[in-house]
Amino acid sequence: MRNKKSAPTMKDVALEAGVALGTVSKVINGLPVGEAYRIRVEEAIRKLDYHVNSYAQGLKASKTYTVALLIPNTYHPYFSRLAYQINLSLLKRNYRMLLCSTDYDPGLEQEYITMLQQNKVDGIIGLTYNPNLYIEESIAFVSIDRPLGPHIPCIASDNFAGGQMAAEKLADLGCKNVAFLRIGSSLNNEPNKRKAGFENGCLARNLPYTLKILQDGDSVYEFEDFLREHMHNGKLDFDGLFCVTDRTVYDVRKILKKMGVRVPEDVQLIGFDGIRSFGDGDYICSTIVQPVADIAEMCVELLLQENMNMKPPLVCLPVTYQYGGTTRE
Amino acid sequence: MRNKKSAPTMKDVALEAGVALGTVSKVINGLPVGEAYRIRVEEAIRKLDYHVNSYAQGLKASKTYTVALLIPNTYHPYFSRLAYQINLSLLKRNYRMLLCSTDYDPGLEQEYITMLQQNKVDGIIGLTYNPNLYIEESIAFVSIDRPLGPHIPCIASDNFAGGQMAAEKLADLGCKNVAFLRIGSSLNNEPNKRKAGFENGCLARNLPYTLKILQDGDSVYEFEDFLREHMHNGKLDFDGLFCVTDRTVYDVRKILKKMGVRVPEDVQLIGFDGIRSFGDGDYICSTIVQPVADIAEMCVELLLQENMNMKPPLVCLPVTYQYGGTTRE
Repeated sequence: MRNKKSAPTMKDVALEAGVALGTVSKVINGLPVGEAYRIRVEEAIRKLDYHVNSYAQGLKASKTYTVALLIPNTYHPYFSRLAYQINLSLLKRNYRMLLCSTDYDPGLEQEYITMLQQNKVDGIIGLTYNPNLYIEESIAFVSIDRPLGPHIPCIASDNFAGGQMAAEKLADLGCKNVAFLRIGSSLNNEPNKRKAGFENGCLARNLPYTLKILQDGDSVYEFEDFLREHMHNGKLDFDGLFCVTDRTVYDVRKILKKMGVRVPEDVQLIGFDGIRSFGDGDYICSTIVQPVADIAEMCVELLLQENMNMKPPLVCLPVTYQYGGTTRE
Repeated sequence: MRNKKSAPTMKDVALEAGVALGTVSKVINGLPVGEAYRIRVEEAIRKLDYHVNSYAQGLKASKTYTVALLIPNTYHPYFSRLAYQINLSLLKRNYRMLLCSTDYDPGLEQEYITMLQQNKVDGIIGLTYNPNLYIEESIAFVSIDRPLGPHIPCIASDNFAGGQMAAEKLADLGCKNVAFLRIGSSLNNEPNKRKAGFENGCLARNLPYTLKILQDGDSVYEFEDFLREHMHNGKLDFDGLFCVTDRTVYDVRKILKKMGVRVPEDVQLIGFDGIRSFGDGDYICSTIVQPVADIAEMCVELLLQENMNMKPPLVCLPVTYQYGGTTRE
């Protein structure tokens, strides 16, 4: 890696400070030493970026400067952007990234956890849909989107705020009757909050709403039945739809086209994710954008942070609205 | 990794065959031994999948079962699909993949080559645009799309055949006057052959054609000037366009829409790559599809193959045409 240095040792600190090894040990362990010595040692620790905990951990195996990313795949544009940003955040800190496209295989996930236990990687960042994943408390693991327990930091977009933002945006855009369309895992994951936030926003703005929730494995064409049931006199009952992901917007647009309902003239659509053509081009629809670069930075920061006694169990990062052609603005 | 076994040693072969170590050594080195012994050793070698070369290399450091992938980024859909498929091909063989999004940074590329020289990875698969990359002859490196020298296998789609296929398809679809639109690196890379194949196909079918070649850094809107120059009486001179990538099709469609030219009614468009919505959905345009899974398999196969005295310097894999809405069929 670029400019990679091996982690500084207590000996390096002693050399840098010009003091005996025992003096460094005393400072680290909070034992009394002369004030001038303490200052010199502390300056050396800062200068060398020596991490006290790596000493305190004593027998911990040497670092690999490698972090594993477990992600279902890298071809879905949200996952591919996430993999890219996490890779950047790690490279910036002179860490390498092992990529494991799990294809939702729990076995693969568990294997990487074993690698971590064998000190073959320093930590894992995982986006997992495995409800039975067992992760020990002491393990360096950061989860994306799904809370895995109070000892595993979970990083997510502020999904509740995003749902609320979508409802308020549709209200601002003049919608009078809206619906929320959702398909996906029923696991207790963060995106579930999109619905709750949306309902909350609709209630706050006195906006009538309907929910249509499909499960994983259901056909997206059940949305077609739902929408056709809500056609009266050649007109859709809804003038606004909030879709749980941009992919759902994409599918629903195809259905609406077939039904002769125009977007955004007859009905305005807002998605969630912030998918862009070719990864960095136009937004493919009006959408609540997940802050992928911030999610990546936060994951890496929390994973590698050694001087923290308590890591935040859930971090929600702010989302934004972006126009992408499926709303009036 | 799943079912990972350490590589079998000569000792394992001797045990399996029930012969002395010296007998195995003789067989491996082609020295005379009794026929029955030779057969037993050869069977044990096959059964254990023992690789003779790993013995012959003698002092070679132990394997890491890790391969690095150097790729500009993972957010462009072609790169993200490639990263996914290469990851799958490696996992299948119980290899891990280090991902390095180079963002076209030659320094990062060179660093991973240094890692390889230090035996921190077993090999590198690289998609690089760095014209000055120096790779030693003995190094385990496989290149995608760009020939880096006769000793580095280069894996690519059959770009020439793809260009020719596009020309023939446009001819079959009734086009009478076509153009090739290209933007991108002028490096000597495989995609350059798309143009040559296209010209060849047009000549074979007596199809008049025009070329418009932009360089990296040129604005895609120079295509707009070009197309406007070829408008006469509100009609585009061309009824077929072959674009060097699907992304170019995307950009050109926006320009044509602005100009009031309909796709595919007035002009039919064929791209190159095979990009699909959300990675596994619809093709975003009619296109020559790169066989990404085959490219990935071939890269991994050639990189890890130890029993080959001469690796193929250039492998071209067959492409296919897929309809995606920008042609009549």
